[in-house]
Amino acid sequence: MPNPLEHVRNSFPILTQMRQYRKAWLRDDLAAGLTVGVMLIPQGMAYALIAGLPPEYGLYASVVPLLIYAMLGTSPHLAVGPVALMALLVASAASTVANSPEEHIAISILLALMAGVMQFALGVLRMGFIVNLLSRPVLSGFTSAAAIVIGLSQLHHLLGVDSVSGGLHEILFGIAVQVGQINAWTLAIGTGAIVLVLALKKRAPRVPGSLLAVGAGIVGVALTGLHEAGVSIVGEIPDGLPNFSMPMLEWALLRTLFPMAAAIALVGYMESIAVAKAIQEKAGGYEVDPNRELIALGAANIGGSLFQSFPVTGGFSRTAINYDAGARTSLASIFSAVIVALTLLFLTPLFYYLPNAVLAAVIMTAVYGLIEVGEFRRLWRLGHYDRYMFLATFVGTLFAGIEEGIVLGVALSVIMLVYRSARPGFTVLGRVPGTSVYRNIRRYDTEHEEGVLIFRLDGPLHFANAKYFREKVCDTIRHTSRVHRLVLEFSGVNDMDSTGLDELFALTDHLKEQDIDVRLAEVRGPIRDFIHKGAGDEREMPLHMTIEDAVRD
Amino acid sequence: MPNPLEHVRNSFPILTQMRQYRKAWLRDDLAAGLTVGVMLIPQGMAYALIAGLPPEYGLYASVVPLLIYAMLGTSPHLAVGPVALMALLVASAASTVANSPEEHIAISILLALMAGVMQFALGVLRMGFIVNLLSRPVLSGFTSAAAIVIGLSQLHHLLGVDSVSGGLHEILFGIAVQVGQINAWTLAIGTGAIVLVLALKKRAPRVPGSLLAVGAGIVGVALTGLHEAGVSIVGEIPDGLPNFSMPMLEWALLRTLFPMAAAIALVGYMESIAVAKAIQEKAGGYEVDPNRELIALGAANIGGSLFQSFPVTGGFSRTAINYDAGARTSLASIFSAVIVALTLLFLTPLFYYLPNAVLAAVIMTAVYGLIEVGEFRRLWRLGHYDRYMFLATFVGTLFAGIEEGIVLGVALSVIMLVYRSARPGFTVLGRVPGTSVYRNIRRYDTEHEEGVLIFRLDGPLHFANAKYFREKVCDTIRHTSRVHRLVLEFSGVNDMDSTGLDELFALTDHLKEQDIDVRLAEVRGPIRDFIHKGAGDEREMPLHMTIEDAVRD
Repeated sequence: MPNPLEHVRNSFPILTQMRQYRKAWLRDDLAAGLTVGVMLIPQGMAYALIAGLPPEYGLYASVVPLLIYAMLGTSPHLAVGPVALMALLVASAASTVANSPEEHIAISILLALMAGVMQFALGVLRMGFIVNLLSRPVLSGFTSAAAIVIGLSQLHHLLGVDSVSGGLHEILFGIAVQVGQINAWTLAIGTGAIVLVLALKKRAPRVPGSLLAVGAGIVGVALTGLHEAGVSIVGEIPDGLPNFSMPMLEWALLRTLFPMAAAIALVGYMESIAVAKAIQEKAGGYEVDPNRELIALGAANIGGSLFQSFPVTGGFSRTAINYDAGARTSLASIFSAVIVALTLLFLTPLFYYLPNAVLAAVIMTAVYGLIEVGEFRRLWRLGHYDRYMFLATFVGTLFAGIEEGIVLGVALSVIMLVYRSARPGFTVLGRVPGTSVYRNIRRYDTEHEEGVLIFRLDGPLHFANAKYFREKVCDTIRHTSRVHRLVLEFSGVNDMDSTGLDELFALTDHLKEQDIDVRLAEVRGPIRDFIHKGAGDEREMPLHMTIEDAVRD
Repeated sequence: MPNPLEHVRNSFPILTQMRQYRKAWLRDDLAAGLTVGVMLIPQGMAYALIAGLPPEYGLYASVVPLLIYAMLGTSPHLAVGPVALMALLVASAASTVANSPEEHIAISILLALMAGVMQFALGVLRMGFIVNLLSRPVLSGFTSAAAIVIGLSQLHHLLGVDSVSGGLHEILFGIAVQVGQINAWTLAIGTGAIVLVLALKKRAPRVPGSLLAVGAGIVGVALTGLHEAGVSIVGEIPDGLPNFSMPMLEWALLRTLFPMAAAIALVGYMESIAVAKAIQEKAGGYEVDPNRELIALGAANIGGSLFQSFPVTGGFSRTAINYDAGARTSLASIFSAVIVALTLLFLTPLFYYLPNAVLAAVIMTAVYGLIEVGEFRRLWRLGHYDRYMFLATFVGTLFAGIEEGIVLGVALSVIMLVYRSARPGFTVLGRVPGTSVYRNIRRYDTEHEEGVLIFRLDGPLHFANAKYFREKVCDTIRHTSRVHRLVLEFSGVNDMDSTGLDELFALTDHLKEQDIDVRLAEVRGPIRDFIHKGAGDEREMPLHMTIEDAVRD
């Protein structure tokens, strides 16, 4: 029986961390927590902007979820909070359903609850494996396209023109017709911020560039009064911590939002687990558990949604900074949350003069790195059909829409899986002279005995390919002269179902009528058992250990 | 360049048959054609009844489609025409959409057009493989449940009570409350017909029992005037051949019917190809081509729909009779169509007194054999998860509905395929003493070198299982003492994508840091090429031909 105390300790990894805590770590955790907290403030506000929410909601999403993840998460380094991709998914879902800014907020929070419940349930049911449906090429294609969509969605803030929504071409066209209305001051501030952030990133990567740009923007506008010259600013931000409030629950709304919430849950988890695993490999000394991560992220989203938070997940850049700044335990994340909470309590008036163009610059510089040109080049060189998965998802996301793109990618991946599985490879083998090794006759110089055909199936044998298998065996026999013995090399047959078994028996009977003797070799243990069971007493299937045994007699 | 004449000959297999025709065959073809034609008359009318159509539509479906299939089909023995399963699918689709008997007819004909276009398109695109999505357990479960539903749907005809529609329990309940209204004469006629057909089937299988029952029923009612005592009869059947008429085409209707038409196209093709292949194996001497069969069935349904035919396919019982009666070529089917056409022209008045109870008896005795109890027992004994596929489809079809059942079966099959593919088997190998053969250490007495772990993956390595693969390798290393070399036996890895490749490289790097040397052995040719391409110049992957080479150095 498991020790109940140990169970509690396993459920809350932070307890183990605290028991092993050394005093010297406190300084490291504090330094990392402060660094990430300071990054969170501009990023949180910027991502709220992407999601179509007032800036304070980005800060709300940076308090409660961080505390919950710190308690439950299996990664001490993962920095959870608002990220660009989730914000974009939220914007896409909420803008199609909401009829007012208030509804937009309520729906964003409801999405956090729904995605959280899904993640939590998947974790409890130990169904973490289903996120594997999102292959890396699909995820890369999706992220790259989403980065472009996010960047473009901020363009109007940078130019000081009216916002334009819709697909890629609609945004570009909508902005093109407003070229005459571009506000030069806004453009100058935005471009300046981009240059500042990029320069600092390159020259002084430890300096929090985006916070500096935010500071410079606030001071600049406050001193010059440019907001009266048409530079749009953030304006008044209500102070105070997020309140407890129940998300609105309506059956019809839940049904409508279901697919979007599923996409948020899936994409959020994928991003988070990828980051957590990458940092774990660098850091070592602990193990990230996929199902427990789902539970932790789910709880963070559920708990967050009760305190006005939109969907969050573990983000790439802040996690890297957290680790680089020396974080030792989850305490670092708690310090980050405290920084944001203090800001909400006391510092919101500071952001009154913050130009929206600066936030747009923060976003654009952050998402630029997500466009994975290198990955696409690599896939193209590999020459695998994966490159078309990337391309289809990329183009689909860019032109058809955010959800459509990801659904397309997942559907294509599953279809390819079934298709590949329906067309397994097969090979004719011959003996490498002087050995008992048998190899592909097209790749090696081999010899073979007269009238003996050795056929290797490179895949499972099941309903989706049983007929194909039989056809290929019969075709091969037809193209080989006077076959009297067929050896089926089954080392590659790693799965079989009743349809496959029936076809194997039917093939054997069919060939027996043509005086061809069928033998099996190198059959995997579980498959051997299955064939024996299916054959019963009436039927004998000659199973040989090696090809040599089967060929010789 | 292909010879154009040969192309024509390939497209119309009947031309080749006619070139090789021998005079002696004519008698055989005529005898078989007459036998099947005579069977078609009661069956066609009965299946029209299942589809919810007037009886003459069953005869219409037995003329034009037969002629078209005879021209294009690659099986000289397949008897195409109305079958019970297709009729049931038509009834299920049309009854939910149609608002009047006229609409019910129009929709049934439209379904033939739609299913025909789908079959034709799948054949032209050479996508016959997608029908493999319907595994045999799913098809058996579906057919068994459908047979029960069909049988029950005829029960009210047999009892002479009002028709009841709906699910299984609704039909049973609806009939139970009408027990007092049962017409004794109707019940006597129906039961008599069932007994007659079954007895003849057993004692004199060559006698066309259903036609005899039909004749006896007509004569009996005409002589006794029992139709005035409440025995329901077929009544007036309009004479004349089916007219040319365009199916009604409406965008909204096409969209609504799309999934049902797809089910009809898929199920129809599955039933037909299974029968055609089974007879081909018995008869020999010709080859049934799946894609050309799709084209032929598609053309038969399209052409049929232009002449008032509902969806048809190759049926089991009539094909068996056709073959047993000695059919040599497609000419037999043409003779069958002529028999039906002559009946439509001259003999329809004969059927005026035919009791509906006799048609119900014909249906019930025909579908009884479709309940595959034996197949279910066999699956249960096999102990494979296939038995749950059968059960789920059976129960789903029986209680949730015809389309729902089949969709459930296909969806479950695909999910299982992905799931199985996400959890491939793996094995630790050891050397069989005194040989160079390596086998599962749990199944054989093996020996192994200190610190060398031989890990065999029994499946492809792709996005759906790359993470699982890595976890299992790391777990196994953790549970083996002091591993310094890992040999990955890849003979079972028959497919790999870029996600799998990345994980393989990452695993190798990760283990190198722990001073574990990774080697690959028995890698399939295409996979070897793919790994080489992915590794490029920067990375070396040690690939060994045999396990022995990899273990030794």
